[in-house]
Amino acid sequence: MRATMIYGTRDIRVEDRPDPDVLLPGDAVVRVTAACVCGSDLWPYRGVREITEAKPIGHEFVGVVEAVGADVTAVKVRDFVVAPWAISCGECPPCRNGVQVACEHRAAWGATDEHGLPVDGGQSERVRVPMANGTLVPVPGVTEPDAALTKSLLTLSDVMGTGHHAALAAGVGPGRSVVVVGDGAVGLCGVLAAKRLGAERIIAMSRHEDRAAIARQFGATDVVAVRGKEAAETVRGLLGGVLADSVLECVGTHESMDQALRCTRPGGSLGFVGVPAGGSDLPIGTLFSKNISVGGGAASTRHYLPELLADVLSGAINPGLVFDSVMPLEDAAEAYKAMDERRATKVMLVPAAAAR
Amino acid sequence: MRATMIYGTRDIRVEDRPDPDVLLPGDAVVRVTAACVCGSDLWPYRGVREITEAKPIGHEFVGVVEAVGADVTAVKVRDFVVAPWAISCGECPPCRNGVQVACEHRAAWGATDEHGLPVDGGQSERVRVPMANGTLVPVPGVTEPDAALTKSLLTLSDVMGTGHHAALAAGVGPGRSVVVVGDGAVGLCGVLAAKRLGAERIIAMSRHEDRAAIARQFGATDVVAVRGKEAAETVRGLLGGVLADSVLECVGTHESMDQALRCTRPGGSLGFVGVPAGGSDLPIGTLFSKNISVGGGAASTRHYLPELLADVLSGAINPGLVFDSVMPLEDAAEAYKAMDERRATKVMLVPAAAAR
Repeated sequence: MRATMIYGTRDIRVEDRPDPDVLLPGDAVVRVTAACVCGSDLWPYRGVREITEAKPIGHEFVGVVEAVGADVTAVKVRDFVVAPWAISCGECPPCRNGVQVACEHRAAWGATDEHGLPVDGGQSERVRVPMANGTLVPVPGVTEPDAALTKSLLTLSDVMGTGHHAALAAGVGPGRSVVVVGDGAVGLCGVLAAKRLGAERIIAMSRHEDRAAIARQFGATDVVAVRGKEAAETVRGLLGGVLADSVLECVGTHESMDQALRCTRPGGSLGFVGVPAGGSDLPIGTLFSKNISVGGGAASTRHYLPELLADVLSGAINPGLVFDSVMPLEDAAEAYKAMDERRATKVMLVPAAAAR
Repeated sequence: MRATMIYGTRDIRVEDRPDPDVLLPGDAVVRVTAACVCGSDLWPYRGVREITEAKPIGHEFVGVVEAVGADVTAVKVRDFVVAPWAISCGECPPCRNGVQVACEHRAAWGATDEHGLPVDGGQSERVRVPMANGTLVPVPGVTEPDAALTKSLLTLSDVMGTGHHAALAAGVGPGRSVVVVGDGAVGLCGVLAAKRLGAERIIAMSRHEDRAAIARQFGATDVVAVRGKEAAETVRGLLGGVLADSVLECVGTHESMDQALRCTRPGGSLGFVGVPAGGSDLPIGTLFSKNISVGGGAASTRHYLPELLADVLSGAINPGLVFDSVMPLEDAAEAYKAMDERRATKVMLVPAAAAR
């Protein structure tokens, strides 16, 4: 099969790799119909996280189940499934608590499972899925989603669930004022999640008109283009002299966290889901004196999938709009480049077999 | 009048100071009947926070209103009142949000108000109270509380409200498992607050039998004497293989925060109220990967006072048990010494006039 590999900084290659098999009774093999590049894939791409040896990459995909092991009951061959970005057993205490990202048997796409067996990356034609019962979510009544539905389903793998996680962690609800820092796919999904949870006032921070337009479509009532202190003062002005009740930090840098904290009112909540890329920290003195609560972290999108899937299938939300580009899997290197250069917000990659 | 001053590291003196007056229409003057030493008073006492010039000290007191300015409507002369540790206007957005510690006009005991006028320390015979309407809480139907009631009322100034704040920030509620790190007065009040909020399992961390006994009296189901990693493993054992849902950090050191984080389950909540004394930090990577939410900070005890006061007056809670020592105000230096050396958990100071 064809699979995307990362060899080092800005070195992405699509190569031939062995087709995966069911290796354990809990495994499934999924034929990928669509995958995508995550903002967090850009950290190793940019060299922020060092790559010491070539490895398969990609952790967001949807597709069709081609084979299952003897213990797999949650999905069956020919099911259309969404794969969350984290592999989880579904049975250990963290999984039962809805915190699948802390699964005691957690494995990662593009690495190995707890038995040392290889797990393919998501930006591939096929993927071996360990612990398929805990991990995969079948899409009821759907076998061949069209492009628009595929895009929205694909967001449930990561970005829409992550935006929702940020909104929950920030205590978003009816009547709350919300600021979203970050206009990447997660930030945009955070806007959509805040709207879905009933927020009245949603201030998106963006200086890209295309992204701001999607933010508005998703429910942003205001868009702020300035940054840092000035951004906080603009928010204060928009909210009648107070800062925001709920702030979503969807980037992961020192600057974005600083801006998010500046926008949070005393006693407010900050949901942070930007993968800390080094440099971002939580200033304990500020949190202490301003009574700012902080939560979030890696999103257990598996936990949110059933609820968000229902809203996608009903048409209540259309998070797939965050995809502004579709490319063949073979062009993965260009997809990374386009996202790195911010020419694309989010790129969907389609394997040749699925495109036919 | 007699008032306690801090001159520098381990240098506490009780001196003659001018009696306070009503200086502004919003002021009250309170005759202190009982004050106390706070764990956070020990930071400057120990030199952790440098004292550059002698200043009045103390921020927890109860007493009788002796005089009020023309604008004071919330209390009247002869009312018995509790003074929260933070002075607040009660009308600005943070105050209306219940975050009085971030009051836009905030003043501090033993310092000056926003107009530069002096505010006495709480460990004094009398105190000028700015913004009395927002700050003071009268105790209905009580003019001369006995010693036991005085102690419980005095905890509402700070430690009981702070323990309650930690418990709320840690998401304590029915069915939750709770760990309390810190066996000072705040930690013990955290145990009581957790019990009051319906927690089933409350694990107090203490290696002092006297304090552990109070913790048990307040509702602790278990007491753990070991620390660090070992403490977390003991908690895991007590809770059937999982860590705690809610952890209260009531100390403020690097070690206590580390221990608190180690005891929190993935997806759990940590309420931190220990004044960060330097060294304590929030490791963003751990919070991110374990989905630990963190909140708390300086407690707006003014906000919690009405609710907790009702429970003290009804006898539902008896937080005054944290006071294991009562001394004349004149012995303030000895009170600090006893708490610094951990010979006393919490010392109540009684001015001579009130003791008569």
